[in-house]
Parts: sequence; C-alpha cells; structure tokens
Amino acid sequence: MVIDMEKSITVVGGDLRIVKLIEMLDSDGYKVYTYGLENSEEILNLERVEMCPTLEEAIAASKVVVGPIPLSSDRRRLSTPFGRNNVELPDFVEALKGKYLIAGNIGIKEELEANEVQFTDLLKREEFSVLNTIATAEGTLQIAMEETQRTVHGSNVIVMGFGRIGKVLAKMLDGIGAKVYCEARKDEDISWIKAYGYNPVHLNDLNANLNKFDIIINTIPFQILDEERLDLVKKEAIIIDLASNPGGVDRKAAREKGLKVIWALSLPAKVAPLTSAEFIKETLYHVLEEL
Amino acid sequence: MVIDMEKSITVVGGDLRIVKLIEMLDSDGYKVYTYGLENSEEILNLERVEMCPTLEEAIAASKVVVGPIPLSSDRRRLSTPFGRNNVELPDFVEALKGKYLIAGNIGIKEELEANEVQFTDLLKREEFSVLNTIATAEGTLQIAMEETQRTVHGSNVIVMGFGRIGKVLAKMLDGIGAKVYCEARKDEDISWIKAYGYNPVHLNDLNANLNKFDIIINTIPFQILDEERLDLVKKEAIIIDLASNPGGVDRKAAREKGLKVIWALSLPAKVAPLTSAEFIKETLYHVLEEL
Amino acid sequence: MVIDMEKSITVVGGDLRIVKLIEMLDSDGYKVYTYGLENSEEILNLERVEMCPTLEEAIAASKVVVGPIPLSSDRRRLSTPFGRNNVELPDFVEALKGKYLIAGNIGIKEELEANEVQFTDLLKREEFSVLNTIATAEGTLQIAMEETQRTVHGSNVIVMGFGRIGKVLAKMLDGIGAKVYCEARKDEDISWIKAYGYNPVHLNDLNANLNKFDIIINTIPFQILDEERLDLVKKEAIIIDLASNPGGVDRKAAREKGLKVIWALSLPAKVAPLTSAEFIKETLYHVLEEL
Amino acid sequence: MVIDMEKSITVVGGDLRIVKLIEMLDSDGYKVYTYGLENSEEILNLERVEMCPTLEEAIAASKVVVGPIPLSSDRRRLSTPFGRNNVELPDFVEALKGKYLIAGNIGIKEELEANEVQFTDLLKREEFSVLNTIATAEGTLQIAMEETQRTVHGSNVIVMGFGRIGKVLAKMLDGIGAKVYCEARKDEDISWIKAYGYNPVHLNDLNANLNKFDIIINTIPFQILDEERLDLVKKEAIIIDLASNPGGVDRKAAREKGLKVIWALSLPAKVAPLTSAEFIKETLYHVLEEL
Repeated sequence: MVIDMEKSITVVGGDLRIVKLIEMLDSDGYKVYTYGLENSEEILNLERVEMCPTLEEAIAASKVVVGPIPLSSDRRRLSTPFGRNNVELPDFVEALKGKYLIAGNIGIKEELEANEVQFTDLLKREEFSVLNTIATAEGTLQIAMEETQRTVHGSNVIVMGFGRIGKVLAKMLDGIGAKVYCEARKDEDISWIKAYGYNPVHLNDLNANLNKFDIIINTIPFQILDEERLDLVKKEAIIIDLASNPGGVDRKAAREKGLKVIWALSLPAKVAPLTSAEFIKETLYHVLEEL
Repeated sequence: MVIDMEKSITVVGGDLRIVKLIEMLDSDGYKVYTYGLENSEEILNLERVEMCPTLEEAIAASKVVVGPIPLSSDRRRLSTPFGRNNVELPDFVEALKGKYLIAGNIGIKEELEANEVQFTDLLKREEFSVLNTIATAEGTLQIAMEETQRTVHGSNVIVMGFGRIGKVLAKMLDGIGAKVYCEARKDEDISWIKAYGYNPVHLNDLNANLNKFDIIINTIPFQILDEERLDLVKKEAIIIDLASNPGGVDRKAAREKGLKVIWALSLPAKVAPLTSAEFIKETLYHVLEEL
Repeated sequence: MVIDMEKSITVVGGDLRIVKLIEMLDSDGYKVYTYGLENSEEILNLERVEMCPTLEEAIAASKVVVGPIPLSSDRRRLSTPFGRNNVELPDFVEALKGKYLIAGNIGIKEELEANEVQFTDLLKREEFSVLNTIATAEGTLQIAMEETQRTVHGSNVIVMGFGRIGKVLAKMLDGIGAKVYCEARKDEDISWIKAYGYNPVHLNDLNANLNKFDIIINTIPFQILDEERLDLVKKEAIIIDLASNPGGVDRKAAREKGLKVIWALSLPAKVAPLTSAEFIKETLYHVLEEL
Repeated sequence: MVIDMEKSITVVGGDLRIVKLIEMLDSDGYKVYTYGLENSEEILNLERVEMCPTLEEAIAASKVVVGPIPLSSDRRRLSTPFGRNNVELPDFVEALKGKYLIAGNIGIKEELEANEVQFTDLLKREEFSVLNTIATAEGTLQIAMEETQRTVHGSNVIVMGFGRIGKVLAKMLDGIGAKVYCEARKDEDISWIKAYGYNPVHLNDLNANLNKFDIIINTIPFQILDEERLDLVKKEAIIIDLASNPGGVDRKAAREKGLKVIWALSLPAKVAPLTSAEFIKETLYHVLEEL
C-alpha cells in the first residue's frame, strides 16, 4: 500500500452522516482510508475510498483522522454502527499517536494528550453547533407536525429557553404561522424575544401561561417541567423535550397524568443526515485550513 | 324519540374530521343525530349525541343533514369509513326529501333537485377551500421533511402553479428557510410572485431551470411533468404531486427513471383532522346563518 | 429626419418615471423620440434620444406612442410636468391617427376609437397594478415611520380592505414586526387573512376594535371612516388613507376631532420613481410582444 | 416643600425621550422632580411633576436621579436641550452626593465614586441596548426608503457586521422583501447568517461582491469602507453608516468619488422618541427593582 499523504483523510467509525461525508470527500478529490465502516454499502465502490483491514493501517495512512460524532456512546467503545468489529477506546487512542483527531464529544482529553494526539472537538466549534441547530429545529417541527392532529399553523406554541435552538426554532415556527411564545429568564433575552417579534414569557410568568399552549418545546437542560408545572398543562398538549440527559421533563409524572411527551435527541443525524454531513464537511475544512 | 328540531343537526357518514366535528357540535350545545358512524368510539358517550338505528330516523330528526366530505368515493355509496352498514346514494337521496344537505363534492345535483333537497357543497365555498389550503400546505411540508435526507431549509424548492395552495405553501417554505421558486404562466401571477419576494419562473423558462431543484411540488391539474421534463430533473430530487386525478406527473416515466414521486391527496384529513374539523365547523356555521 | 421605425418608440409627456423609462429604453438600444419633456435634463444628452420640435413630428416617428400615467389630470390636457408647452387632448388624439398608444388611465376610449387609434391602458393590466402595489406598500410604510413618534415594530396596525394593496402591505408590516390586523367583509377574505397569519377583523367587528390601533391604513374606495367610527379612534393614532378621490375618511370630521390623517396618493411616482419606471418598462415590453 | 421620598424620582436634563419618560412616570403615579427641562411644554401642567428652581433642590427630593442619555455630549456640561441654564458636570456630581444616578454613557465613573454616588449606565445594560436596536433598525430602514429612488423591496442590500443591530436590521430588510446579504468575519457568525436564511458574505469575499449592492449599511466601528473598497461600490448605491465616531466610511474619499453617504447616529431619539421612552422606562423599572 503506497500512500500519498498529501490529500488523504482517514475516517474511523461514525453514523450515516459520516458515510455521506465520505462520499463528499471522495467527490472533492480526497483519498479516504476507512475502518469501522465495513457494512456501509454506499461507499463500497467509490473510486478513492479504501477500506483498510486493520485499525492501525487505516490510521497510519493519513495525518488527520475523523472519528464518530459523538466519539462514543458508552465511554468504552468507539461508536461504529456500520462496523464489523468493535473498537475499544484505549486501542483507538494508542493507534492515534502523533496524529490529529477530529470528532465530536471527545471527552477523553487526558488520554489523548498523554499519547501526543492533537484534536478538535467539532461539537465545541460554535460554527458547527449553530449549523446543527438548523437540522434540530426542522426535525422538531417535523415531530410537532407528525404528533398532533392539528396544524402547527395557528397553534399556540411555547419554546422554553432562548439559546441557539430556541432562536432558530422560533423563527421557523413563526414562519409557518404558529403563534409563538418564548420563555426566558434573563431580561436581555426577553428584549431579544421582543426584537424578533415573538411573545415573551418571563420565567416568573410561566406558570400563569402554561395552560394555553398546544405545543410545548423545551430546550433547557434542567427539569423545568416538574410535577407541579405539568399539572398546569392542557391534557391535549404535546411536549417535545430537546434537552439531553436527564431531560427537562419529569417523565414519570407526565406519564401518570397521561401527557404526551416526545424526548427527541440527535435529530440532525435522524432527520437530515445529508445536510448534517455538509455541515460536518464545511467545519472540517475550516479546521484543516487552521492546521 | 321526542325531537327538538331547534338546535339539532344530523350527521351521516364521514371520516375522522366529521367525528371531531361532532365532538365540537356537542360541546357547542347542539343535539346531534348520527348514522353511519357506529364504529367511532370518540362520540359514543357524548351527552348530546344520539346514534340512530336507521338512516331514516337520523335524517328525520333535523332540518339540516351533514354528509361526508367528499360525499362518495365511488359514486355509488356514501363515504362511511366509521359505519357498520353501507349506504347507497339513491337511498340517501330518497331519505333526504325536503331537507337541507351540507357535504363536500356532492356531484349528484340533479338527483337531489329532483327530490326537492336543497344543498351546499362545502368544497365550493371559497372560504373553506382557503382554510383547507393551510392544512394541505403544512402536510406537504411534513412530507418534504420526511422524504428527504436534507433539511428543507436551504434547499431549492419549486412550487408549480400559483393558485391557492401555491400561495400558502410558498409562504411556509420561505418561512422555514427554503429557497423558494414559483412557476406560473400568467404575467399577473409572475407579478404576485415578485411582490411576495419569491423567485419567479415563467413556464417558458421552466425547462431551463428544472435541474436545480431538490424538491419539486406540483399543484397544477395537468400533466406538466411529462417524460421530457422528467429527463431534466435531478436524480436525487423528490417530486410531490398535489394535483388530483390523474395528477400532474407521468408516474410511469418517473418510475422508469428511478425518480421519487409522492402523490399526496386529501392531506387535511390525514395530517390535521382536528384543525380541518374546526374549518368545517366554521364554514358550517356560516352556511347555517345564511339559511 | 430619416427614421428607422424598426426599433423606435415615441414618448409624449409624463412624470419622473417616464424620464427614467426613457433612460432605460435608450440603454436597451431603442431610438426614442420625445415631445413634452423639454425640461427634463437627464435625457438631454442621451445618444438615442431625440427631442422633436413638434408633437406631430414626434408621433410620426414611431408606430408606438407612450403617454403619461395617468394620461391627464384634468381631462383637458396631457399631463406634461416636464414639458414647455401644453398639449390639448383633442390635438393629441388627432395626431395619433393610425398609431398605437400605451398610457395610464386613458379614459378617452371613444375619441381614440373614432380616430382609429389602438391603445392599451397600463393601469388596467393586472401585472402592472400588482407591481405598482409594491411601491405603494413601501411608500405607506415610509409614511407610517415618518409620521409617528413610535416604531411601527410593536405597534397595533390595521389595514382596512384585503385587496392587492392590503395583501402586500400586511406582509411588509408583519415583516418589520408590527402587530397586524386586517379588516375584510367577505368570509373568503377572512380565510385568506388567517392563512397568511394576520389577525382578522370582520367588518361587523370593526367598531369594537377600532380603539386599539396606533396606525390605521385604509385601502377601501368608500368612506368607511365616517364621523361615528372616527369617534372610536385613539387620539394619538394616525390614519393613512390610500383610497383615491373622494377617499375613505371623513376628513372634515377628522380635523374637528384633532385626528391626524394623511391622504397618500400616487405613491409609486413619489417614493420610487426608478423602480416604478422598471415596472412600466417590463409591462411595456410585454405589451410590445403581444402586438 | 414637603417630600414623600417613597415613590418619587428626580429627572435632570435629557432630550425628548426623557420628556416622554416623565409623562409616563407621572401617569404611573410617580412624583417627579425636574431640573434642566424648563422649556419642555408637554410636562408643564402634569399633576405630579414639579419643576424645581435649583439643581440642588431637585436632587435632594429623591433617592434616585435620572440623567440624560448620553449624560454629556462635550464632557463638560450635562446634556440639557430643554433646559434654561447650563449644568456643569462637576456641579452635578457635587449635588449627587449619596444619591443613585441612572443615565447613559456616564463616563465620569471616578468622579462619581469619589463623591459616593452609586450609578447604573443604561447603555451598558444589554436588555436596553437590544431594545434600542429595534428603533435603530427601523430608523435605518426609513432612511433607506427616503434616500433612494428605488423600493428597498427587491434591492440588493448588504449589512456589514452581524452584531445586535445587524441581526435586527437584516430581519426587517428581509421582512419587506429586500435581497439581504450579511457580511461577517467569524465562521460562527457566517453560520448564524445561514441559519437565519440571509446570504452570507465572508469578509474575505467582500471586495468581490461590493459592486452588486444598491444599499450598503455599515455597523462596524472601524473604517471598513476605505478608499480602495469605495472604488468597488456602484455609483448609484447609497451608503448608510451607523458606526459611531469616527465612523466606518472614509467620508472624504466617498465625497470625492461622488458617493452618497448618510452618517446616521442616535436614531432612536430621532425616529421614535416615544418607543424609546418606553424602553427607558422598562429598563429603569428593572434597575429600581434591583436596588
């Protein structure tokens, strides 16, 4: 195996977005060495993609290694849904010595530094997080449409939390004709909500308003919809929780009250793998330029 | 059975929207007599709803009879998806003598007039068609989200035809961040498309532009996407056809070319039965006021 | 004077929009013969523009004659704000024999037909009226900004009448963050107002709502704001009347009550002569194609 | 003069916004003592407003003193456009001993602290700056409409800088139908521009795009439009500079090239004093709650 390191990238593991990314890298002229993606048919016959027999050969072939987003779901093994064999994290770190790793939610900083691996965590790149927000917001809208017997148009919808996702989601909801309310705690965010033309609901006034919403969307990483607040929610309302573990809803209490809660995580990979792959590529190229 | 005809309505047959309508009529204080809805559990225990044992008794109980939307799907029997027995159209007409019928796509004008039945076709009420458009547009958006691996945000989308559905759909697509193109044939519509801020594509320029769209939505009741035009469409594009029978796409040719076509009909009943029921109720009340 | 009639146009009279139109025609390669525009400096030195010494010579030079929009403001003389001499309408008709006239609000149909003059009234072309609406709506927005000490953003604004201007104006008002209410009389229009996501106000409910508006914009060619209704208007509100003579506001009563009324006519020529000229050109070319 | 300090506020100096603020405070039940506002007729006859004969008496009457926004325009005297006499800054500081000052752009921190005056600078409150942005953005739109012969609708407009003003301005421009481009330097901001659906222009690509804009709006406090870049601007374009002293445009070079530059400062006070006063009041009340 003779290797031109000039325009080559190694990709180890990853989900459908990474598969789509490889197709794009191939079409942009990159030589791509892979491992842990053996069961992905889309890339089998691509001209410039080479599936390597071992993890070590794949990593040795390039200076830059792209890993899964997130790197691992159990903190023990690499996330390789399309792989034939498991890859233990320590083996991965060992093989990476002297290389540059680009992945998401890396979380094993010390181990990498101890082994002289440089790295960039895509999920800590603001530019990537913002782009990802587009797919998360649109996926949330899709869920809202699928899970209700009403049109979102004309529905009373509250978005709790006015961070990245809240901002993009509120714009889309407004764009299809929902009556949009945004909850926030800080005066500054209340000002922004007014500036963008949505109806502001200060946290202090949340309880007094909860019973009017058909759709409640939470983005706050904190159990804001506790048992007491759930009592104030309309029976026919649906709650979409976008907050990562442990989520922002007391799910047990919600179940007992017969409320419909959808806990929606990792939407970009699910609803728009292709667009997500483009976002990854765009950010990856920015990182490569900075190296 | 003693009947107060003052505030009573009879409902015969109909889909989930009609079931929801009955719940609303009940809650607005109407006495509702039904037939052909025996399998609808939602309305079994409603206080003011009475399921009649025969078609004749149901119809006799009120001056106004609400029928299915559309009235029939095979021109022979009433549309009664929740009914236990079939209702032949001639029997229905016979029973209606002297009553007022409100339904959709009635289509048996002469038979009704011959039997002294007055009627209003909801689907010919512009106010109702416009409201229905909201649910159709939102359902189309939902399909576009479900059937693509991309976000609709940022996609190139063309809406062919700038009638009722085209107008509302273009607004929603724009509202979630799609790049919206609208096709029209008349200069007047091209002016409207400019006024609303979308990208106009005159029918004469359609072929030259077809290859740039990720999502193609047709509202024109005419086979505009024939074999020749389908040759110009991107392989990865999806086509959503909203035109009623026979549709606006040469489906056989599309299949041969491996293009993905979704023929989406009757969206309001499918994606938003509750909102649709509200639209029916609103229009029904307007009709009742005019009687 | 040797004349190539192939690509020549004659322009007689007109306001700043017509002057701008001439510049565009010149730059598109047309030979332009003019009369009644002697005081317009912009076109004095244009290569292909020839100011003719008499009305008759100007008209003789081309098959197609473009006239003012509107043709006349007093029904006696041509509208020639940039002209040195007056042009009486009968003389204009006389000179046009056998030619094709394109102008606005022509109004002397019989005289023209009697003299074998064919004509197209631009203001009766729906495509042109719709384009003009853009400038009218934007001009109205400008007035609303100039005449209030508040931001339009966040203000309660009602647009009375949901015709062409109402539709475009409501969209712009909504687009900058006003709280938009639209008044209409027909159920069909109320449906459209809902579909577009504005707050509908049926004419029957207008009086009950009038006191909440900061800005009231009328597009209805009928005195809808009579003395009784003006009594219901907030003292600090401003009223912008877009209805042509006699207008939609009882101006005498408004003055007595100390209400601020702006009667805004002919906005496209005033606020956006350049864009208006482009609209005229676009429509003119469509008319020429159809000849 | 017996003073109930409980619900009283002293106001010294300030422009029309402060006058409007006093009207609102009066109507909210505050006793208001003023100085330096003698020529403001609106507040002369208000029930709870008392114009004090001396600065000292006015300040002595309340715990909280509201000053001009900005406090001074020459760093020597208080800004008192409606006052009869000048107030030197040192005299003002002297009189404030032990009080709480709320004003804008205070800038004399050390002097105040030395004299035991506590203070809050409204212009450093993010909530206030965001609200102010609404009026700035709308004022900019008004200028764009007034200074061009085109509609902003359909025009190519670039907003340079995607901070607070850039965000709100881009939304409004998009809302009335402009073709909106936003310039930014950081990848993160480029992501936001995409998420909001505008056309991103990275600073690196600015020069290559400058010639296509009809309207150029600068919000960057740095001379970004230098002589070289001005050479790339269309002759008919207008430039609106919102950057405070020294501004973002080489005005001398612009003048020599015949380019139209509008340097627009302090828009909220000019275009929407009433709305601005409401923003001040809202923020003032938040500050009072925090005391």
